[in-house]
Amino acid sequence: MASIQLNNESLLRNAAYINGKWIPATTGKTFNVTDPATEQVIGTMPDMGAKDTDIAIQAAAAALPRYRKTTARSKSQILHKWYQLLVDSADDLARLVTAENGKPLHEAKNEVLYAAHYFEWFSGEATRLDGETIHASEDGNRIYTIREPIGVVGLVTPWNWPLGMVTRKIGPALAAGCTVVLKSPGETPLTAAAMVYLGEQAGVPPGVVNVVTALENTVDVGAALTESPTVKKVSFTGSTRVGKILMKQSADTLKKLSFELGGNAPFIVFEDADFDAAVAGAVACKFRSSGQTCICANRIYVHRSIYDKFAQAFAEKVSKFTIGPGSQPGTTHGPLIHSRAMDKAKEHTEDALRKGGKLLVGGHALPISAPTSSNSP
Amino acid sequence: MASIQLNNESLLRNAAYINGKWIPATTGKTFNVTDPATEQVIGTMPDMGAKDTDIAIQAAAAALPRYRKTTARSKSQILHKWYQLLVDSADDLARLVTAENGKPLHEAKNEVLYAAHYFEWFSGEATRLDGETIHASEDGNRIYTIREPIGVVGLVTPWNWPLGMVTRKIGPALAAGCTVVLKSPGETPLTAAAMVYLGEQAGVPPGVVNVVTALENTVDVGAALTESPTVKKVSFTGSTRVGKILMKQSADTLKKLSFELGGNAPFIVFEDADFDAAVAGAVACKFRSSGQTCICANRIYVHRSIYDKFAQAFAEKVSKFTIGPGSQPGTTHGPLIHSRAMDKAKEHTEDALRKGGKLLVGGHALPISAPTSSNSP
Amino acid sequence: MASIQLNNESLLRNAAYINGKWIPATTGKTFNVTDPATEQVIGTMPDMGAKDTDIAIQAAAAALPRYRKTTARSKSQILHKWYQLLVDSADDLARLVTAENGKPLHEAKNEVLYAAHYFEWFSGEATRLDGETIHASEDGNRIYTIREPIGVVGLVTPWNWPLGMVTRKIGPALAAGCTVVLKSPGETPLTAAAMVYLGEQAGVPPGVVNVVTALENTVDVGAALTESPTVKKVSFTGSTRVGKILMKQSADTLKKLSFELGGNAPFIVFEDADFDAAVAGAVACKFRSSGQTCICANRIYVHRSIYDKFAQAFAEKVSKFTIGPGSQPGTTHGPLIHSRAMDKAKEHTEDALRKGGKLLVGGHALPISAPTSSNSP
Amino acid sequence: MASIQLNNESLLRNAAYINGKWIPATTGKTFNVTDPATEQVIGTMPDMGAKDTDIAIQAAAAALPRYRKTTARSKSQILHKWYQLLVDSADDLARLVTAENGKPLHEAKNEVLYAAHYFEWFSGEATRLDGETIHASEDGNRIYTIREPIGVVGLVTPWNWPLGMVTRKIGPALAAGCTVVLKSPGETPLTAAAMVYLGEQAGVPPGVVNVVTALENTVDVGAALTESPTVKKVSFTGSTRVGKILMKQSADTLKKLSFELGGNAPFIVFEDADFDAAVAGAVACKFRSSGQTCICANRIYVHRSIYDKFAQAFAEKVSKFTIGPGSQPGTTHGPLIHSRAMDKAKEHTEDALRKGGKLLVGGHALPISAPTSSNSP
Repeated sequence: MASIQLNNESLLRNAAYINGKWIPATTGKTFNVTDPATEQVIGTMPDMGAKDTDIAIQAAAAALPRYRKTTARSKSQILHKWYQLLVDSADDLARLVTAENGKPLHEAKNEVLYAAHYFEWFSGEATRLDGETIHASEDGNRIYTIREPIGVVGLVTPWNWPLGMVTRKIGPALAAGCTVVLKSPGETPLTAAAMVYLGEQAGVPPGVVNVVTALENTVDVGAALTESPTVKKVSFTGSTRVGKILMKQSADTLKKLSFELGGNAPFIVFEDADFDAAVAGAVACKFRSSGQTCICANRIYVHRSIYDKFAQAFAEKVSKFTIGPGSQPGTTHGPLIHSRAMDKAKEHTEDALRKGGKLLVGGHALPISAPTSSNSP
Repeated sequence: MASIQLNNESLLRNAAYINGKWIPATTGKTFNVTDPATEQVIGTMPDMGAKDTDIAIQAAAAALPRYRKTTARSKSQILHKWYQLLVDSADDLARLVTAENGKPLHEAKNEVLYAAHYFEWFSGEATRLDGETIHASEDGNRIYTIREPIGVVGLVTPWNWPLGMVTRKIGPALAAGCTVVLKSPGETPLTAAAMVYLGEQAGVPPGVVNVVTALENTVDVGAALTESPTVKKVSFTGSTRVGKILMKQSADTLKKLSFELGGNAPFIVFEDADFDAAVAGAVACKFRSSGQTCICANRIYVHRSIYDKFAQAFAEKVSKFTIGPGSQPGTTHGPLIHSRAMDKAKEHTEDALRKGGKLLVGGHALPISAPTSSNSP
Repeated sequence: MASIQLNNESLLRNAAYINGKWIPATTGKTFNVTDPATEQVIGTMPDMGAKDTDIAIQAAAAALPRYRKTTARSKSQILHKWYQLLVDSADDLARLVTAENGKPLHEAKNEVLYAAHYFEWFSGEATRLDGETIHASEDGNRIYTIREPIGVVGLVTPWNWPLGMVTRKIGPALAAGCTVVLKSPGETPLTAAAMVYLGEQAGVPPGVVNVVTALENTVDVGAALTESPTVKKVSFTGSTRVGKILMKQSADTLKKLSFELGGNAPFIVFEDADFDAAVAGAVACKFRSSGQTCICANRIYVHRSIYDKFAQAFAEKVSKFTIGPGSQPGTTHGPLIHSRAMDKAKEHTEDALRKGGKLLVGGHALPISAPTSSNSP
Repeated sequence: MASIQLNNESLLRNAAYINGKWIPATTGKTFNVTDPATEQVIGTMPDMGAKDTDIAIQAAAAALPRYRKTTARSKSQILHKWYQLLVDSADDLARLVTAENGKPLHEAKNEVLYAAHYFEWFSGEATRLDGETIHASEDGNRIYTIREPIGVVGLVTPWNWPLGMVTRKIGPALAAGCTVVLKSPGETPLTAAAMVYLGEQAGVPPGVVNVVTALENTVDVGAALTESPTVKKVSFTGSTRVGKILMKQSADTLKKLSFELGGNAPFIVFEDADFDAAVAGAVACKFRSSGQTCICANRIYVHRSIYDKFAQAFAEKVSKFTIGPGSQPGTTHGPLIHSRAMDKAKEHTEDALRKGGKLLVGGHALPISAPTSSNSP
């Protein structure tokens, strides 16, 4: 197994985290975590299923009565301390993100700081979950609202932001007084595990945050979370296709849902646009994390009068990318997450060429783990 | 057909209302509206299906771009005028409610005033749908939120509040700038029709509020609303069973949902309760609208030390009900909505007796349309 | 006395309004109200002093306990009805505004509708004065806020918006549950009196809104309001000089104050401005109500490269004004409020000429009541 | 000079803090700070006047443009760090509070934690100073509000909470983007100086928080703050008498004011009260900080039927106080702040006895610095 160099080796976990304990799957099954730049194995994790998920749900349910009664200020201080620990461990966490997700180290570091900020923000929200006192329209009535935690919450997050999407969901849940079961991303479970290890240091009580790991069993875990009558809400970031399935599965328990699903975002360049800014913006937007973030443009429309000039400038910028392992200094763009992603990119390219598209730059897969500048065709 | 005496006969409609027009079903099919106190037919309505629903949805979609751009103040003033017209027509509307729902006239009048108040309230909300300006964490950014209407909204409401549940859903939708398709209650479509007739007088533009009527085709209409990609949100008040079906149907279009479903409310009397207040409260709560409202207690728990005394006092109060047509002066409790409801009550009684229950008052169906005091067995 | 033609002659009042009664000053003293266009007397009003003001304050204090306990909805409905009555009487009220203030009738009508809207808005606010429920940092505490009326409020308003500034202050006070003593503007008391007459029709209870009239005694009334320990807040719109005096007078009772005082607004025209829009905007802004509103530019700065062209265009537009009695059809600009205002304008002109200014248009006073186009010098 | 033992001796300052520098008065004048328990001098501070205050105001004005442009998040993080430093130095700060104010050490420690919490809270507020986007009543308008800092703020605080009242005023000012001039309490300037020293460590930029020290010149400093046109707001906690003077002085600059002035709080014991809780509550409330806090009851009313019993129990509790230097272990009640306070207490006692009052406990001054239990007369 290839090793990841960390200042604090305790951050490298190879277990799920349920009820304050680091545990394997009940079946003993595991899956490998690989570095997408080298395709080498860098860790193993329990491939948990419905039964493990249910154990995690029960742990969250058992921790709920006590945690919800904790004062708002105490919740706030736990989140702030956790924020501080994430910032203090930012270098190590960034290495983990790069190792399992592939994005360049400086982007990974930015993700960690961005992710940590959710805990800083929701630390402040915890003490501000105010309700309202409302004028009664009849004398002698007194009306007011109090915000209560909804209960156990199921969280499902994607691999393209191994830390950012996780803190974004855990932060508000903990601020509100909920306990959670997180299904960490199948491709990138190491970062989430390190995060929850720091949560323990920050004082998160056992059972309040539970992390279920799974790769092959992902569908079963999703079903277990959505169909459980104990889970009161599910928050999911991922594809529209999966979102629809989860909603259907949630119907029998009338679960509350928060979904952040796919977009189909166009990037539009008008004739009178600031040309250089438009090119730079399009490249940055399209190739952030090698094109694997939810805000990457799906379509680029350029006014015909500047189309050729734009395409040329765009291709030239792309030709200057330094593609390679995210951990290597100078790398501007890391690898795609796995071979399925490469197949899809290849398919898109071939489809475009078949339909009369013209290849200006790239167009072929690069060899594994061979850092290189891209070059024009 | 039995007639309903109204001051303003225009309020009695026997058509659906789509795109500002009073129309029949495309199939020509109709259903009868009956007075539950007499089982006499008091009106007919189009039994619309999926095709008619789709026509209504298209009308709402066509009216949306213009209506959403109307100033907030103009929306507010339409709602306030509508509120005023409902109050001015309260006697007629109450007669319609009693005629098709059966509740006593004074309760029906209260419902109308309660229902009208939603338009008064949301008239004020229309001009207060404020967003926020938010501090940016990076210099040079300016962040603010604006509330936009979600689009076409589908509304499905129950017969036990023929007007109250309808205005409660139309009010916020119109204040927010949405256009709506209302499936009016199958048993009680006349009141909703009268309401929308007054909306026309108040200046609601064609297509902004559409009313689809159906009894036998209710399931088809519900499916058409939930499965339409044009409808962006569905608001439903009714049974938990139907709520789950609608949520499942809504999954493929990832529709936003607001549901108000069934409860299972206990009424609990402690040993040291204020006895008279507890008896009075239990009777009022259990028999409001002859037990057909959503806040009626499903179970009554009384401390064993006062159980017998409580049961006696409760039965005595019930024995003094004046049961009869809601339109008859002195009636305290009207009929159940239809024979299925009577069958269910009978079944509950028989089941209780079989399990050792003791009959203290009532226990048998009363003859149709024969106003009478109830008497003990 | 010249007469004002009104559809509803009851709107012409020649008395103050205290505790629901139309009354003279305790001293019997009165002052004349004159039409600034003709300098003819069009009404008389009590010239009240400190003693009358105190009677009004006591009336407001006596009405407070009951009015503050009125339900929010009832306050809301009174304000909405008052709004409706102002709109229904808009033509008459506009005639009163023009008669005593001089502004053209169409501007006066706009003021009335603008003024009425305050009551519509605060009708909605009355039911929305919500407080907050707040998370306690210690277990077992429950914290919430309730908004309470501050008590008796003193209001002092200017003559340039005889109705608009009055409703703007009464609306929020009544919505909040306060009772008020209004010192109506010395030059324009007739409109405020008509307004409060309509308030009586709308159901404002006696003592809730009291109107003290004064011209010569204005300073005494201001002192009585600010120094009274019973008055808890004073709201004043007027000059900065008077604002400072009122604040000083309020110190011994630590009164809450809301002031809207003078500005010194520049109008700045850059070299690349839309020239026609700039000229039109400058003229509209400078000469609204013949230069007598608080948003009239005090200084106009024009880039030197377009200065001459701007001045020419500005003067040409001014030369086309139709100056005359506001009540006369076609009048675009009415008279100044009184001879002191004319003296000040004359002084400004002479000062500018003395300092090298160049006269492009006007420059001399027009004869009283002789409608005429202005003409260039 | 008696010394105060601190872990961090840098916290003991004997200078004012203006524009990031520790400076003396321009006149060189100083005043002594004394320990009220021993009447020994424990420090000296500059006795600054109007000229020094003006220098501080100019420093605050100069720092404003840059500080207000700092991102909200950066302001938030400075406040949070300051909060953390106060908590970390809580023991030393408590020693300073006890040394100059006299309150028992455990009360002083509680004050420090309470005081620190204001910075924690306002750290969260800094990033939440949101405005609103508001529906325009006319098409084509877009309305939104942004909160801007008011400018330089003058703060004046009392000696009975040497730290708590200071952080309570600095926290919101800094969160809002204002810069401040604090007049620290004449009797207790050492704690405020230590606090601002820690602010420097936390990254508060020079000129953002300025501390003017004064004892004899207090009146001049107050006048300079209230009369300065540069200071836009004054926040004061202290006596009603001084509040009125400051309001009067503020009138010519129309300054915004926030005052927390004296109360006259009664403590009322009904016949059916929980007797022991009432006695304990009355004693705690009356003698908190030896009777020197703003929430101490000014009058105690006890129902006549339990008056004697209450007085006896109250006196008994008081007789068990351990009065002495706050720094001495076991002390429950520290000294009064200075001899003027002792004279006033004596005067109240003599007045009460003269009017027929009966002495149950105490009644005479205790010797300086001689820790002792009180004993009955």
